[in-house]
Amino acid sequence: MNSVSATEREQESNEASSTCVTMQAMGRAARAAARLMARADTGIKNAALKAIAAELDRQRPQLAAANAQDMQNGRDNGLDAALLDRLELTDPRIDGMIDGLNQIAELPDPVGEISDLKYRPSGIQVGKMRVPLGVVGIIYESRPNVTIDAASLCLKSGNATILRGGSEALHSNRAIAACIAAGLKQVGLPETAVQVVGTTDRAAVGALITMPEYVDVIVPRGGKGLIERISNDARVPVIKHLDGICHVYLDDRADTEKAFNIALNAKTHRYGVCNAMETLLVAEPVAAEFLPRLAAAYAEKGVELRGCEKTRAILPQALPASEEDWGTEYLAPVLSIRVVADMDGAMEHIARYSSGHTEAIVTEDYSRARRFMAEVDSSSVIVNASTRFADGFEYGLGAEIGISTDKIHARGPVGLEGLTSQKWIVFGDGQIRQ
Amino acid sequence: MNSVSATEREQESNEASSTCVTMQAMGRAARAAARLMARADTGIKNAALKAIAAELDRQRPQLAAANAQDMQNGRDNGLDAALLDRLELTDPRIDGMIDGLNQIAELPDPVGEISDLKYRPSGIQVGKMRVPLGVVGIIYESRPNVTIDAASLCLKSGNATILRGGSEALHSNRAIAACIAAGLKQVGLPETAVQVVGTTDRAAVGALITMPEYVDVIVPRGGKGLIERISNDARVPVIKHLDGICHVYLDDRADTEKAFNIALNAKTHRYGVCNAMETLLVAEPVAAEFLPRLAAAYAEKGVELRGCEKTRAILPQALPASEEDWGTEYLAPVLSIRVVADMDGAMEHIARYSSGHTEAIVTEDYSRARRFMAEVDSSSVIVNASTRFADGFEYGLGAEIGISTDKIHARGPVGLEGLTSQKWIVFGDGQIRQ
Repeated sequence: MNSVSATEREQESNEASSTCVTMQAMGRAARAAARLMARADTGIKNAALKAIAAELDRQRPQLAAANAQDMQNGRDNGLDAALLDRLELTDPRIDGMIDGLNQIAELPDPVGEISDLKYRPSGIQVGKMRVPLGVVGIIYESRPNVTIDAASLCLKSGNATILRGGSEALHSNRAIAACIAAGLKQVGLPETAVQVVGTTDRAAVGALITMPEYVDVIVPRGGKGLIERISNDARVPVIKHLDGICHVYLDDRADTEKAFNIALNAKTHRYGVCNAMETLLVAEPVAAEFLPRLAAAYAEKGVELRGCEKTRAILPQALPASEEDWGTEYLAPVLSIRVVADMDGAMEHIARYSSGHTEAIVTEDYSRARRFMAEVDSSSVIVNASTRFADGFEYGLGAEIGISTDKIHARGPVGLEGLTSQKWIVFGDGQIRQ
Repeated sequence: MNSVSATEREQESNEASSTCVTMQAMGRAARAAARLMARADTGIKNAALKAIAAELDRQRPQLAAANAQDMQNGRDNGLDAALLDRLELTDPRIDGMIDGLNQIAELPDPVGEISDLKYRPSGIQVGKMRVPLGVVGIIYESRPNVTIDAASLCLKSGNATILRGGSEALHSNRAIAACIAAGLKQVGLPETAVQVVGTTDRAAVGALITMPEYVDVIVPRGGKGLIERISNDARVPVIKHLDGICHVYLDDRADTEKAFNIALNAKTHRYGVCNAMETLLVAEPVAAEFLPRLAAAYAEKGVELRGCEKTRAILPQALPASEEDWGTEYLAPVLSIRVVADMDGAMEHIARYSSGHTEAIVTEDYSRARRFMAEVDSSSVIVNASTRFADGFEYGLGAEIGISTDKIHARGPVGLEGLTSQKWIVFGDGQIRQ
């Protein structure tokens, strides 16, 4: 080891430890803000959301200037066109953020909701009260509008938030954070209720996900690599989904039109989304009837087909599907197709290859619909509708912070309620244990 | 390094890797059994519980012989009297296990319960269905009756279980496991639905808590050291509580009799339990009225008092409380007492020192009761009743696998429902996304 590298290493380690100190301070401030947010009433929280919306509208020039700086840096650093597009804060996108804030202000407040209150033989009255989780850490990639989406959901559900966006969007995120701080201040809520990590240092993420004393849950939003890294290293619970390998099973008792429409919509409505179908399972008795018409429709949309041997016997134009295909989330106009003996065969395939996101059956058979619904272990199980409905807005949550494929806590689309938990409450009249 | 230690090390590492292979095989078997358990109907699960109860009754001689072996080993290894007492499987304790099984058979089955089913503007009908978590790993210490408690709750909630008891109870646990296997077999459920780790190798715990592909959640039951170790090393979610540092706050608008009864009951009903009061907070205006009478009652029960300065001005017999006392779960006839200015002072103290388990206020003031209820962030918040009510049976859960002080997923007493999650279900008539 020479003296230069020792010095460099020391400098790096100093930087990391100073980032750690900064993150700890943010954590402490968030924890203190969380107590004030938890007791903020619905009216104040809604006023804050509207004040932030007004600030975004007022500070359009500042937002444009900050975003221009990120766009210039992005171009200088050779970001590709798709990433640059996601990074851009156009006026319609700012309108979208303002609309989002106003919509979340309209949603019912989950905090303080009391349920299941009943008397026990001892005379105490026991129930549950919905309360904020506390401090939510959100780690996301380049889209700056996530800053507003995430902050507004956490604010409405009474949580404090620490947001860590992508380095490409740093200036834009800071400008948005300034609007949020101004809005919070106007209504008398602590500005530290929403904090944006102001450094692009990677150590900041490492610190954020390992402070259980200050952070109650982490929500990562981004590519699979990011989410896997965070899940592996986190010392606090993570609300996440890794893959959306969604299946549609066309049963031999399916209605032909429903089968055709759903199989087409689930694949081709949008390709790059987690609730798109990646594998189509078809019951053997109807494969020869269903597949050719579907294949023609897929061909028209430019979808590449990869099939098992039985599929290729019906659709010779399909490429052979490999073992790897069954476990792949294409997020693209590619579809794998497998002919299965029956619903049990379909459920076996799903149990083995599904990522636990969303599966659908198309059938008119009552008992099969009931069994599929009960036995398939995914966050959404659908009878006779497209997998594309697995979405917080379609389910009526009003908003969505993400979709969870975990079974603990929140499962499927996560809205305001997923950012809360329930504590037990007891009303007594002096009761003691005998 | 000499050749002997190298050989020993190799042998150890071979043992560890063979344990790991064994645990992986148990995990695979549990995962397969979990699918069958998830679809087992209520009648079959109840029949299994009753068959296991009958087997325990029939195999009393085998249980006695196995337990005698553990007791002899325990005596040979110098286990203390308290541990030997917990280890012993007396006939009344076997009766207790049988009663427990029959009680759990009587509880409603949470699996398959559908809630919140409603139509959306798109025409789909969306709701939630309660489903088992999958595979539950339970790690516990010497009491062999936990084997039945834990297995029966997991069985009723449709989960597969891997149980890892203390090495002192290995023979007893194996004998109980044989009864469970016989009961499961009689009703046609997979014997691998409840597996008991048959080795005392420590590596088995390490493997069990780091197999997210096979284990969905870990429930540790035992001392704080065990739970901390498991939480730190686990790669799967853990349902746990570390401490029960519970507070009772006597407000200056408290009813005198309720205050006296609750403060006495919360401390002295039982000492070694997690919902016992460890710190009493008293509002300054009523401290001189409440404390002397309470101190006399505590003295009669042999409770040692440790107070802040203001407490000691009223109760000179109290020892001085140190900063450490406020953060200590005594689990013993020791009580720390602090005089606070008012309810805000009490809530500040609780926010700083509570373990988030259970806090109670005694007051007749409506607005203060409402604020305490809303603002105190613990798994149970109680108005005018003893902290000792924070318990699955008292809350009407029928049974309890543990008490969680975490905010994610289950909070407070965890019964059958805490061993399940909810998936989304969608009923459609051919709907597609527009």
